[in-house]
Amino acid sequence: MLIFPNPTLDRQIEMALAEDIGPGDITTDNLIPVETQSKGKIWAKENGVIAGLPVVERVYEMLGGVRTTPKKEDGELVDRGETLLTLEGNTRSILKGERLALNFLQRLSGIATQTARVVEKTAGYNIRVVDTRKTTPLWRTLEKYAVIQGGGHNHRLGLYDSVLIKDNHIEAVGSVKEAVKRAKEKVGHTVKVEVEVKKRAQIDEALEAGADIILLDNMSLEEMSDAVKKIGKKAIVEASGNITVDNANEIAKTGVDVISLGALTHSVRALDISLDLF
Amino acid sequence: MLIFPNPTLDRQIEMALAEDIGPGDITTDNLIPVETQSKGKIWAKENGVIAGLPVVERVYEMLGGVRTTPKKEDGELVDRGETLLTLEGNTRSILKGERLALNFLQRLSGIATQTARVVEKTAGYNIRVVDTRKTTPLWRTLEKYAVIQGGGHNHRLGLYDSVLIKDNHIEAVGSVKEAVKRAKEKVGHTVKVEVEVKKRAQIDEALEAGADIILLDNMSLEEMSDAVKKIGKKAIVEASGNITVDNANEIAKTGVDVISLGALTHSVRALDISLDLF
Amino acid sequence: MLIFPNPTLDRQIEMALAEDIGPGDITTDNLIPVETQSKGKIWAKENGVIAGLPVVERVYEMLGGVRTTPKKEDGELVDRGETLLTLEGNTRSILKGERLALNFLQRLSGIATQTARVVEKTAGYNIRVVDTRKTTPLWRTLEKYAVIQGGGHNHRLGLYDSVLIKDNHIEAVGSVKEAVKRAKEKVGHTVKVEVEVKKRAQIDEALEAGADIILLDNMSLEEMSDAVKKIGKKAIVEASGNITVDNANEIAKTGVDVISLGALTHSVRALDISLDLF
Amino acid sequence: MLIFPNPTLDRQIEMALAEDIGPGDITTDNLIPVETQSKGKIWAKENGVIAGLPVVERVYEMLGGVRTTPKKEDGELVDRGETLLTLEGNTRSILKGERLALNFLQRLSGIATQTARVVEKTAGYNIRVVDTRKTTPLWRTLEKYAVIQGGGHNHRLGLYDSVLIKDNHIEAVGSVKEAVKRAKEKVGHTVKVEVEVKKRAQIDEALEAGADIILLDNMSLEEMSDAVKKIGKKAIVEASGNITVDNANEIAKTGVDVISLGALTHSVRALDISLDLF
Amino acid sequence: MLIFPNPTLDRQIEMALAEDIGPGDITTDNLIPVETQSKGKIWAKENGVIAGLPVVERVYEMLGGVRTTPKKEDGELVDRGETLLTLEGNTRSILKGERLALNFLQRLSGIATQTARVVEKTAGYNIRVVDTRKTTPLWRTLEKYAVIQGGGHNHRLGLYDSVLIKDNHIEAVGSVKEAVKRAKEKVGHTVKVEVEVKKRAQIDEALEAGADIILLDNMSLEEMSDAVKKIGKKAIVEASGNITVDNANEIAKTGVDVISLGALTHSVRALDISLDLF
Amino acid sequence: MLIFPNPTLDRQIEMALAEDIGPGDITTDNLIPVETQSKGKIWAKENGVIAGLPVVERVYEMLGGVRTTPKKEDGELVDRGETLLTLEGNTRSILKGERLALNFLQRLSGIATQTARVVEKTAGYNIRVVDTRKTTPLWRTLEKYAVIQGGGHNHRLGLYDSVLIKDNHIEAVGSVKEAVKRAKEKVGHTVKVEVEVKKRAQIDEALEAGADIILLDNMSLEEMSDAVKKIGKKAIVEASGNITVDNANEIAKTGVDVISLGALTHSVRALDISLDLF
Repeated sequence: MLIFPNPTLDRQIEMALAEDIGPGDITTDNLIPVETQSKGKIWAKENGVIAGLPVVERVYEMLGGVRTTPKKEDGELVDRGETLLTLEGNTRSILKGERLALNFLQRLSGIATQTARVVEKTAGYNIRVVDTRKTTPLWRTLEKYAVIQGGGHNHRLGLYDSVLIKDNHIEAVGSVKEAVKRAKEKVGHTVKVEVEVKKRAQIDEALEAGADIILLDNMSLEEMSDAVKKIGKKAIVEASGNITVDNANEIAKTGVDVISLGALTHSVRALDISLDLF
Repeated sequence: MLIFPNPTLDRQIEMALAEDIGPGDITTDNLIPVETQSKGKIWAKENGVIAGLPVVERVYEMLGGVRTTPKKEDGELVDRGETLLTLEGNTRSILKGERLALNFLQRLSGIATQTARVVEKTAGYNIRVVDTRKTTPLWRTLEKYAVIQGGGHNHRLGLYDSVLIKDNHIEAVGSVKEAVKRAKEKVGHTVKVEVEVKKRAQIDEALEAGADIILLDNMSLEEMSDAVKKIGKKAIVEASGNITVDNANEIAKTGVDVISLGALTHSVRALDISLDLF
Repeated sequence: MLIFPNPTLDRQIEMALAEDIGPGDITTDNLIPVETQSKGKIWAKENGVIAGLPVVERVYEMLGGVRTTPKKEDGELVDRGETLLTLEGNTRSILKGERLALNFLQRLSGIATQTARVVEKTAGYNIRVVDTRKTTPLWRTLEKYAVIQGGGHNHRLGLYDSVLIKDNHIEAVGSVKEAVKRAKEKVGHTVKVEVEVKKRAQIDEALEAGADIILLDNMSLEEMSDAVKKIGKKAIVEASGNITVDNANEIAKTGVDVISLGALTHSVRALDISLDLF
Repeated sequence: MLIFPNPTLDRQIEMALAEDIGPGDITTDNLIPVETQSKGKIWAKENGVIAGLPVVERVYEMLGGVRTTPKKEDGELVDRGETLLTLEGNTRSILKGERLALNFLQRLSGIATQTARVVEKTAGYNIRVVDTRKTTPLWRTLEKYAVIQGGGHNHRLGLYDSVLIKDNHIEAVGSVKEAVKRAKEKVGHTVKVEVEVKKRAQIDEALEAGADIILLDNMSLEEMSDAVKKIGKKAIVEASGNITVDNANEIAKTGVDVISLGALTHSVRALDISLDLF
Repeated sequence: MLIFPNPTLDRQIEMALAEDIGPGDITTDNLIPVETQSKGKIWAKENGVIAGLPVVERVYEMLGGVRTTPKKEDGELVDRGETLLTLEGNTRSILKGERLALNFLQRLSGIATQTARVVEKTAGYNIRVVDTRKTTPLWRTLEKYAVIQGGGHNHRLGLYDSVLIKDNHIEAVGSVKEAVKRAKEKVGHTVKVEVEVKKRAQIDEALEAGADIILLDNMSLEEMSDAVKKIGKKAIVEASGNITVDNANEIAKTGVDVISLGALTHSVRALDISLDLF
Repeated sequence: MLIFPNPTLDRQIEMALAEDIGPGDITTDNLIPVETQSKGKIWAKENGVIAGLPVVERVYEMLGGVRTTPKKEDGELVDRGETLLTLEGNTRSILKGERLALNFLQRLSGIATQTARVVEKTAGYNIRVVDTRKTTPLWRTLEKYAVIQGGGHNHRLGLYDSVLIKDNHIEAVGSVKEAVKRAKEKVGHTVKVEVEVKKRAQIDEALEAGADIILLDNMSLEEMSDAVKKIGKKAIVEASGNITVDNANEIAKTGVDVISLGALTHSVRALDISLDLF
């Protein structure tokens, strides 16, 4: 998935520049003459998988007066000390965009790096590591892009592109079976219907009503194995709830098709990345 | 600091609702009748300091049809299992706002909780724990608010409200002394001038030129103690660089006035919080 | 699907009010005293299926000062002369919102009415009548809503929520088989993959690669019947291209699951509806 | 009237791109390599008058990476099979913009074509064919532009640029005479005052009070002829209500100066136009 | 002309609140408890004609928590010391909105007051005092409203609602006659055509071509009188250029229909108005 | 302070172009062929200090098709008749941007010129002439920029970047001392605290509590001199209230550090500047 051009993201990046610069950068504008030119680089201070270089480039295109040259590509694993991107141009612009560029790059690379760790734990199994809707408000597109750079896949984008029937919905409707049936009647033929189950009996209902995806919510490893067998290949099996780098491998062994982790995006440690002029 | 009314935040929350709901919540709208009413609660699944309840309330005011009643206040330390807020009203609206409300509340409470941990480590010293500009793009106001709820204080809001002269600026101008002098001549009389120093000699220059705040960048504990003595009370002393919960107490003992930590906002673990209907 | 609250639509309706009213309604504001109150009704001047009454209500909520009472529901078939909605309140506001309210209501009811005509022709067959992306820019959500009110279903919402591989994509990739395979590897597990085929041989490829939906592009009735048999129940079968009220019944007999018609939204005759004060 | 640059239209086109592309084109971005280049053409599949080529060009300028070369001009009558515009550049961008570009071009050309048909029916008479405010919300400027390309003229742009006193206003004020008089006193000297009349007696009042334009609402051919004679050249005479391609010629013979048709914009059949890569 | 509801103005007032309050009012929010309630009044510190009270009310409606009660109406002449509006409610909100409310009210009342002075000088003559497009960017609607409150009338709203042919246009086209003729052929029948003339001969051309309004640019009193006679009642006569309070009476005597003054809006002295809590 | 790039200003200039041009410039677009090219100049019709040339350039960059070449720099004193900037390019674009460009340039130069007059009166004293928050809504950044071009300095930007405790705050809190103390505890260490005093005794409280700036509100020359002595160099001394070009010199002699004048921005006489084609 290419990030740009994307009108929504462009407008939000513009707003983010306004958030940081506001009426003006009173340090830089008062100290650095307008015509000063500089060269600089953005480099990794620790190992990790990079995501967000096109966002850095877009930030500087919007500010103007700075040429950026990526030295790595999103999705690449880099070592501490490696240069990710070089910059050349108006010193004021380089400094004004620095913090925003790094705020994006550090967070998105943190997501990609953490995703890659989970993916590595499940290597050799036919399983997908996917994200959730537990993303930062307004930046979901970028964060889901970062998950892909780390080797993961995406769950649905929002409430609009796929049906996910959760316990609250089931209670309101009465049963898994009725809920799935009603969804399949009403939503478009291009939409998949996923349903969350907590117990064995609900799996039968889900299958009978024609669910496309069955989400096993907080089940034990044994329950997951059972469910996989019961479902056969009649639906995609997704496991969710308290999945971490540490237990991902064990879960992969149960044969589920997909594991989803909120922590990929809601509890991110930023990758340490700096911008230096030289 | 009261968060609302704030036109910028309101508009962004509206955009965040659009991000998640898009053309419509195809699960809820197809399964739950439009007139269904429910009660629910938002509750903590682990201990922590809460921040963001007014944001949750604002999300539901914008969606409409749901009454919210906070049971805790921002800044309060809560125990696992405690109810933070109750909801009553249109079931569709409760479910449509759930994810966005929790995405805000979990992240902001994560920031407040982590800030409180650092503040606790420095208790008994006349020192402030402050944030940086390493915040999530577009949500700086909320994240700096969360730092205050955790017992911290705020550093500058952006590039516009306070001068912070860093090494790149110093290189461009030639010396700490000249940079501080130039800033004080040009910026408004209501603006403080802060300068980053890396070595002892720069402290003299900073003081001579009248810096209001001196930032000690990545100094050892011993260097910090020396700097504090040298500066006397002639400027506010801020320490920055690799400060964590673990070394905060040791740094507080050096006598610096302020410590600033990027990790308070750039590497947040979300507090575990859920919404249940009942 | 409930239309409101929807932040994107609300903002666009606000812009549409600004488009018509601009700096002010110089006729009404100069002739009607600000305190004048009136009653009025919106009524159908011809038979048809109504869609858009909640949009009319939203327009007047945004203008303020007018109470609206719907007398019909969206999706209802009404007769010439019937009242759809009554209004009561500030005369200036009623007149300022009249044209925008009717522009929405007439177009959306025109879409619903035309959809209902096609649906009626296919009654008794297990087939869905669906729309396309040939909608009015910025009003797709409303127009797809109107199709549902007319008894139709929706195709995908945009380029983001479902894969539809067309001839240009197939040419670029080399074959139907390779294109479907690549899509299924890359897109999320919640996304269906649809592929357009023009000839028999492509159907085999599509099935082999696991396409969820096969779109028969501009095929003859005989080719459609053949395709339906060949596909069995292994994929959903959609027919598209030059489908009209006149041939819809014949196509339904071929056994396809879905027919999609661009004309439902790109060539709409507005339903004749008026607003009268009394 | 040149359409661009127009900040309002540009922003709306940007929003329309966001409506269709959303978080990303998951078909194209997953199947077509980012560096692929293509050539293509937009061509007419039926005869008609073209309007909207500058909008197509603007859509692609905003997307970036595609050069467009118009082969026809807006307002030209083209034959089935003729190329309207060629494209060359990034394949992904060509495909992402295709639907939006065509949605604009097909609708605007449909308006221009229908306008041209009415204009042709009135050829030889000193009469203008004009539009109304029954346009698609947010796209009035473009639709009124398309009417001009079809040989028509524009009625007022909105409620702000010209006075049109209708029956509701007349009732509120008491008489045609008083209403026109009041309007002329209050509105700017650059604004014309038009008044709708239903019967002969109102024409005298309108003339006496100095109306600039008299709109004959739903009158018979005979009533129109009478009205034209009565008015002489003391005001512009506009006929409105149930005017179609079929009766336009008869109405032109009555001597009215202007005929206005809502159907030019509220009931448009899209012109059949395609984009092909080659 | 009623100002509100007006979606464009509402959005701009919201942006203006954001401009002043930004991330928060750090004085008020840190000193005044959130629950504090106050009463206050806005009063005139000098004599003048008031304009803008509905804007003040709208500012406080948007902020929320404050009830406003106007004690005067826009267009009223008030004496020093008189109360214009009282406020009651949340102290923080009263203080946060104070500056913006007064910035609007002082400027608009300044415009109304100055307009009233010119209008007074021309009393007894059948002449209108009108504004120009020399208004503050983004606030034209409000400033033109203020001119009306001062007893003036409005010239055109922008480049879109009326034709004004100036010397640059005449040069490009070749002659006054040809320019007016071309305009009348092309623009809608609801639009008036005005042309600027500098010499006697151009008046004949303008009349011959059917200009609706003739603008006498920077003419002497004698030239104006001559022009008025020559034109008879065949067109509206507007005088412009260096008109002030001092010479307005002399110009009125020449018999021109309209005088337009840029200074009404481009060189405004704010009326002295304060907000006091009590 | 460099004005551009500034996303907020850019967006507002775009809106201001939309305000004036709206759906189109019906004079220019109907009279001037689209391909016509012209040269022109913007020149001063009276002496003054120029501010706003970069805004003029930005307006034309946004419109497109026009090259601008500044002949003066912001902050320069120019004589009547001097050329400020030349333009070359598309005639339609030059004419469409003319009024907006001049509206900005005339107002900002008016502010700079008036500021320069006050600065000149205080020459030889170590005093700063500063603005207030009495600026035009939405244009504060530009107006504060213009004050700097005239040789002045800026007071705080808004309610967010500096504390200014006024009488209403003092009343609510109880005393100057308590108010200053509370502010210093709560606001960030980068923020200065200013307090308004009306009488001698309050100065002691302010100093004791550690105020950074003391504002003498409407004091007599004698009171100011006394206050300056009392304060020594323990705080910055600002005088405000009824300061004009006429009394600025006398006030400077009292030894205050700063004088602030609302009239610099709230009561501006536009500098007379024109655009001529040639």
